Amino acid sequence: MKAEILSIGTELLLGEIVDTNTPFLANQLSLLGIDLFFTSAVGDNPGRLSGALRQAWERSDVIITTGGLGPTQDDITRETIAGLFKEEPAVDPALKQSIVDYFAQRGIEMPASNIKQAVLVPSAAAIPNSRGTAPGWWVERDGRIIVAMPGPPGEMQFMWQNQVFPRLQRKTGAIILSRMLKTFSLTEAKVDELVTPLMSSLNPTLATYAKLDGIYLRIAAKAARRPEAEELISRHEADIKKILGDAIWGADDETQESVVGQLLTTRGLTLAVAESFTSGYLAHTLASAPGSRSYFKGGIVAATDEVKVVLGIDAGLVAGGPSAELAVAMAGLARQKLGASIGIGIEGYSEPVGGTLPGTVFIAIDRESIGEPVVQRYSGRLYQMKKRAAYYALFDLMKLLRSA
Amino acid sequence: MKAEILSIGTELLLGEIVDTNTPFLANQLSLLGIDLFFTSAVGDNPGRLSGALRQAWERSDVIITTGGLGPTQDDITRETIAGLFKEEPAVDPALKQSIVDYFAQRGIEMPASNIKQAVLVPSAAAIPNSRGTAPGWWVERDGRIIVAMPGPPGEMQFMWQNQVFPRLQRKTGAIILSRMLKTFSLTEAKVDELVTPLMSSLNPTLATYAKLDGIYLRIAAKAARRPEAEELISRHEADIKKILGDAIWGADDETQESVVGQLLTTRGLTLAVAESFTSGYLAHTLASAPGSRSYFKGGIVAATDEVKVVLGIDAGLVAGGPSAELAVAMAGLARQKLGASIGIGIEGYSEPVGGTLPGTVFIAIDRESIGEPVVQRYSGRLYQMKKRAAYYALFDLMKLLRSA
Repeated sequence: MKAEILSIGTELLLGEIVDTNTPFLANQLSLLGIDLFFTSAVGDNPGRLSGALRQAWERSDVIITTGGLGPTQDDITRETIAGLFKEEPAVDPALKQSIVDYFAQRGIEMPASNIKQAVLVPSAAAIPNSRGTAPGWWVERDGRIIVAMPGPPGEMQFMWQNQVFPRLQRKTGAIILSRMLKTFSLTEAKVDELVTPLMSSLNPTLATYAKLDGIYLRIAAKAARRPEAEELISRHEADIKKILGDAIWGADDETQESVVGQLLTTRGLTLAVAESFTSGYLAHTLASAPGSRSYFKGGIVAATDEVKVVLGIDAGLVAGGPSAELAVAMAGLARQKLGASIGIGIEGYSEPVGGTLPGTVFIAIDRESIGEPVVQRYSGRLYQMKKRAAYYALFDLMKLLRSA
Repeated sequence: MKAEILSIGTELLLGEIVDTNTPFLANQLSLLGIDLFFTSAVGDNPGRLSGALRQAWERSDVIITTGGLGPTQDDITRETIAGLFKEEPAVDPALKQSIVDYFAQRGIEMPASNIKQAVLVPSAAAIPNSRGTAPGWWVERDGRIIVAMPGPPGEMQFMWQNQVFPRLQRKTGAIILSRMLKTFSLTEAKVDELVTPLMSSLNPTLATYAKLDGIYLRIAAKAARRPEAEELISRHEADIKKILGDAIWGADDETQESVVGQLLTTRGLTLAVAESFTSGYLAHTLASAPGSRSYFKGGIVAATDEVKVVLGIDAGLVAGGPSAELAVAMAGLARQKLGASIGIGIEGYSEPVGGTLPGTVFIAIDRESIGEPVVQRYSGRLYQMKKRAAYYALFDLMKLLRSA
């Protein structure tokens, strides 16, 4: 099946918004094993939209459109599809009722203009939209499919995942499952190199993605039945784990902060941090995990040397500039001042000083009555390191907690 | 002039990367006053790329392509343009030398495959690329233009801004200048409503953009000479300032944190913060302004009630939950513990408690020997408020410093 995506809306041509629908759908189509050959954006102009839709109809089997389903005069996707097939749009009573109900639930009478969203043509079936008033259209004709969805990403993605993806999956006659493995501490080039033997597999497929919190690997498997797809994924996952081992810290929806949270909770430990280099980003990241209040006490952001001394760190140590020893002192400060069982300290150079690279950080972890603090040194491009350092700290803590 | 953008690369069709080049160029074309009618993405496939390019050539005056200029077999943009005009590509000696030099400066011999990047056709002139090895192509024929640029955004944007934008500006025969005014505390709907009379102006044009740190207004003016364009902008700017007044906090490259930094610096003041609701995001934002070490002392992130008591806040006050009084106490704590002249405290409810909305925050500013602390209460959607609260705090501080 050859697919094509058509994004509709003049705002896309003014550079006022970034079209995130197209990359989302492109990714989903690749999961379905459907080849995507073209994507385009066109404005709310009847002639140009009609031309673009006709061309898509002539060259593709599945056409996915987003946008142009609103209640205003500008919104012409329905009219254009109707025009392509020379079919007459008519108000569908059930569809009208669902829109009236949508407004009634919100205590509002349906504005007259919304009646436009209740029309269908004979070739079109409505796709329910539980997040808005614009139903989608599923059009099948001459063995080809047009799926018209609303433009707002929240409405479109919900409709896609609950209605469109399953229907297209039935058309392709296959079950597709995917699993995302998440690593840290290896470069994308290194991960690619290590998993090269697995990369050539056509089913499951393997793809890598570089993120701020590490390199992700997506395994996607296709099978006639669910257990087969699961089996394909779990075998590939086991092979990857054999190769990448401890570099894998989580999967799917897990974040480094949520994994750290689970480890701290099961061990009954609490955490506090003291940052200068990352200036609050580590605290902000830790606090954003659900349930973090049960183990994350808080943090100290010491932006100047003077503040470090005011807070009780030895003036001579502070005067020496960022160092492993200073990071250890910061970790101890965090732990003691905020009454936590574990303290993390982050210190770093933002500029080359004494031969260090830009973005050199020292990360120390101080554990109550569990021996000596541990401290690591990392370097990298400054721009990235201001946030990356927080993930180095979380990854170090994970390793420590897992080994303890 | 009718323009069209063509993004080239199979990776765009797999959803692996988001195409940021197209919205960037769309925005730039609107600045140039050039109408953009179509944007498309096509893979590295000779037949489909050739078809897409031919169609663009038939319907548009200016065609901007990105991607497909690399040294590998996959990169076929040059070949496809040559094929469209039935012109023979040949190595250009000067171009070859510039690529050899590029590698030599990095101590590397030019790989053989890069010779591909040194070819031209008779209708094409090379566009220098100081950020990479792929020169662009500027093709003029039959009164139409093709501009082929490399795909990496850093290379493309640099080439666009330094080479392509000025050349296209000469073609349009106009000077175009723009200015971005930045507001806070008003919704986009309210800003739109207030500036409605100015919105209908065709020169300068006015557009609004909703950002996390407020609503931006872009004024763009077109004139035959620079002073005229400047005059148009400054008149429009004065009109907008009359309407929006204190809601405008800055312009162009200014950020709320940089404006706060200037105000603190000129007044010889220093700042410290204590956050629970924003968990370090305010400290991180403040520290990210250049030169912040001279006025920003740091912050305290108190993630739990227990920590607030440990740090010295009255246990009864803490037990009462987030309140204006607790925010004031936090502001005082920050100022005193970290030795700053101004302290900001942020407290907030993440869930509806006692009739408050999700995302209700209290922001207090405590000033050394300048009377009573000031405190404000804001509400909004929780998801946004976790970051928005930092901007409420910065905006409150700006107002206070400007009035003092």
